[in-house]
Amino acid sequence: MDESQKKKALRLFTYGLYVATARHGENYGAGTINWLSQSSFDPPLVMAGIQRESSLHQAITASRAFAVHIVGKSQKHLATSFFKTAKREGDTLNGFRFEPGTTGAPVLADPPAWLECRVVDEIHRGDHTIFVAEVVAAGVRRDEEPLTLREAGFSYGG
Amino acid sequence: MDESQKKKALRLFTYGLYVATARHGENYGAGTINWLSQSSFDPPLVMAGIQRESSLHQAITASRAFAVHIVGKSQKHLATSFFKTAKREGDTLNGFRFEPGTTGAPVLADPPAWLECRVVDEIHRGDHTIFVAEVVAAGVRRDEEPLTLREAGFSYGG
Repeated sequence: MDESQKKKALRLFTYGLYVATARHGENYGAGTINWLSQSSFDPPLVMAGIQRESSLHQAITASRAFAVHIVGKSQKHLATSFFKTAKREGDTLNGFRFEPGTTGAPVLADPPAWLECRVVDEIHRGDHTIFVAEVVAAGVRRDEEPLTLREAGFSYGG
Repeated sequence: MDESQKKKALRLFTYGLYVATARHGENYGAGTINWLSQSSFDPPLVMAGIQRESSLHQAITASRAFAVHIVGKSQKHLATSFFKTAKREGDTLNGFRFEPGTTGAPVLADPPAWLECRVVDEIHRGDHTIFVAEVVAAGVRRDEEPLTLREAGFSYGG
């Protein structure tokens, strides 16, 4: 296999931008992710590829739950903020206000929409874990088009 | 959970459009899919959610391999053609020329890029199967921006 052709082809996949959060006790995990897709209508499932060596991964593994937030077209700064390690101060995470969700995962106030999910399966292969999770709560706060990875000028894949 | 909020939030996920193909003996399977993402850099893995009741699913399950093709910005007709059941005539599939790839899966000539993958794991949950597969061959034929599900005016999710 030609490595550069493989990289080029994989970079033609289209992705959104999401901030994922999780919490286990006093340990908060959060991160900007793009390897995310629905994987079933009934029950409603999603599949997410999460970096193995991350606080987000730790918090999901421990709590068996996470929230994902749609990053809006106007919120590139939100995505950028969660490239950094999660830091909680009071009711903020990396400076963004949150409330505890149904699953205990922090639900951010600013994104246009969010989903909470409970892990039902996980696959450990390669450098990321695939979490398969059932959607158990969701909300849409306002109409705003989602930001895509390509529009944001970011790349993660290849 | 509010069903309509869940549906709205899931429809804010961003997707590309891909034609997936597989072959087992004389049985060809193909379909337009969008629940696809990379899931590891090393080894290079992808995860794909494939409708359980489909000829594509049958052919992947039997052959343990599939090809995915990026649908280019100008190729909405290609995506639409593979909403229909795969029909092979000579060296065409639904009217589009192909050659057998490394894995035996039909590799279409028209899309700007393609990848061949071998299944390493599968999760049967809900109404789709998640196939986790290693990329074993890939090619980029020309520079063309990929078509997204949203741009095409399609919806699959919610």
